[in-house]
Amino acid sequence: MGELIKEEKEILERAVAKIKNKKIKDILFVQQSVLKAVDEFMYKRRITRVLPLMMSPITDTLNHSVEECELNYSNQKFNVMKSMIFHKQLTMLNPDIDSLYIVSPNIRLELATRGDSRHLFEFTQVDFEFKEATMEDVLKFIEEIITYIFEFVRENCIEELTRLEVGTDHLILTGPFKKYSTEELQEKYGDDFEAEASKAALEPFFLTNHKREFYDAEDLDNLGTYRNYDLIWPLGFGEGLSGGEREFTLDRILLRMRELATDENAFRYYIELAKQGEIFKTAGAGFGVERITRFITQQSEVSDVTLFCRKPGEKYIF
Amino acid sequence: MGELIKEEKEILERAVAKIKNKKIKDILFVQQSVLKAVDEFMYKRRITRVLPLMMSPITDTLNHSVEECELNYSNQKFNVMKSMIFHKQLTMLNPDIDSLYIVSPNIRLELATRGDSRHLFEFTQVDFEFKEATMEDVLKFIEEIITYIFEFVRENCIEELTRLEVGTDHLILTGPFKKYSTEELQEKYGDDFEAEASKAALEPFFLTNHKREFYDAEDLDNLGTYRNYDLIWPLGFGEGLSGGEREFTLDRILLRMRELATDENAFRYYIELAKQGEIFKTAGAGFGVERITRFITQQSEVSDVTLFCRKPGEKYIF
Repeated sequence: MGELIKEEKEILERAVAKIKNKKIKDILFVQQSVLKAVDEFMYKRRITRVLPLMMSPITDTLNHSVEECELNYSNQKFNVMKSMIFHKQLTMLNPDIDSLYIVSPNIRLELATRGDSRHLFEFTQVDFEFKEATMEDVLKFIEEIITYIFEFVRENCIEELTRLEVGTDHLILTGPFKKYSTEELQEKYGDDFEAEASKAALEPFFLTNHKREFYDAEDLDNLGTYRNYDLIWPLGFGEGLSGGEREFTLDRILLRMRELATDENAFRYYIELAKQGEIFKTAGAGFGVERITRFITQQSEVSDVTLFCRKPGEKYIF
Repeated sequence: MGELIKEEKEILERAVAKIKNKKIKDILFVQQSVLKAVDEFMYKRRITRVLPLMMSPITDTLNHSVEECELNYSNQKFNVMKSMIFHKQLTMLNPDIDSLYIVSPNIRLELATRGDSRHLFEFTQVDFEFKEATMEDVLKFIEEIITYIFEFVRENCIEELTRLEVGTDHLILTGPFKKYSTEELQEKYGDDFEAEASKAALEPFFLTNHKREFYDAEDLDNLGTYRNYDLIWPLGFGEGLSGGEREFTLDRILLRMRELATDENAFRYYIELAKQGEIFKTAGAGFGVERITRFITQQSEVSDVTLFCRKPGEKYIF
């Protein structure tokens, strides 16, 4: 084996400097505290924890383009797991399980154009779903779990947040999260409304009504609007959680799939279950663990909370 | 989209029956309790939690053949994560971090011949590593964490274990885990010693000295023997944890890599770090979450603790 060339040595130096980052141990402790709070909260409420899967014949269709990547195993084709949305719905087939969560690593091979402060091509999300729940139920749940996490962090990470020089003021929540619709904020802020509203806000807020993946339910009383929601971190940190009520009847699923030109053959088993009435009315959401950690520790990039570079468009050695 | 053909309908029925398994909710609660106990134990000891990665240019070389699978992203080549062994060592480059753990989903595309009661082609392991630790330190740690987990489960899963009709007697540990070497048990039981000794045992025991991956340290005072270890579940449940002291000097790493015909070019950044003295003396281990759950809930197959089929050699639809 030869020596590394100059360019490789520089890449290695950058990777090592990232691992040696003096702030990272405190940041990781905050992140660990977030996950500890999540698990405690879920355990107390007896919400079933499901282990993540990393590959499956079906996965999230997403609302934006990523590099596609097919895995072959045992002469069968798999996708990397972009999110466990369909596995959440499928788990609900079990009559005993009416609520679940997954600490779910997701792979989304983002285009290099997403090499910004907010994207990683693999990250972990806390993904949850409830049978028979409405949007309002889930928004209430989100408020409760975020409040629990922030209180847990304020209690257990005082030294870390002090060393990180960020304090805890941004973790004090003064009341129910405000709720806006995309139309409303677009009118106020123009096309870059999400980023602008995030910069203007001092507390997390909900943003409802996004036209996106086929599985997010359209409001049947108000066609063209959607029973889904994001949670936006304030102070410019942007979107931190996405969720929705789900489409569950065969006709609605097929209609929405066709609107979005979804490959129905890839979803033929899922469609068959819908035909049998075995996709249930559920609602849920998922929030990015690195993004909430970035917000709590007030880092300039989501990449600042990771040990190994997963920012789109870089050179990767580890 | 056409109808499913008969064979596809049968596959779907089997997948749905698996999800609807009447025992699975209780089994998942036991599993969730195992992870809760792990996180509590680690949190109390301030062991740093690192988030898992699912793809990397370098990953575990393993000690057995699996289907290989290359991922391409951003014009670079990645492997699916077989284990985070090298990322554990690399994290130790941070001078503030001297202990870490990862709840780490691993993908090992096992050959269909491993479609047995003990293998899944993706599973989750609790993977931990300590700077400057010896084999004896880690064995003590393992005993403590397993004892903590069993006590937590005995306290919190009484109803579940009663409904599963397995009781808690197999979770009562009467003293330090026994320790055997592979030579010793091979002499007593012949070539299938691991399985035979597991069947004969009533409590978990350690099995030391395995010739395997290059990174597991050879005993320099006793060449040809190795400072590594497995934990074997009793009652025939077999291996549940693997670990070892690690090789960390350049000459030892290169020697062991050459013995095992490792692709040194793939590890050129790792070797460069060893050259710089930046791979440290560490020891650690990882245990399979589905396997400990199988043991605690006394299921006949590891696949019985999962919602979605990941047994090698099957047909996968979800």
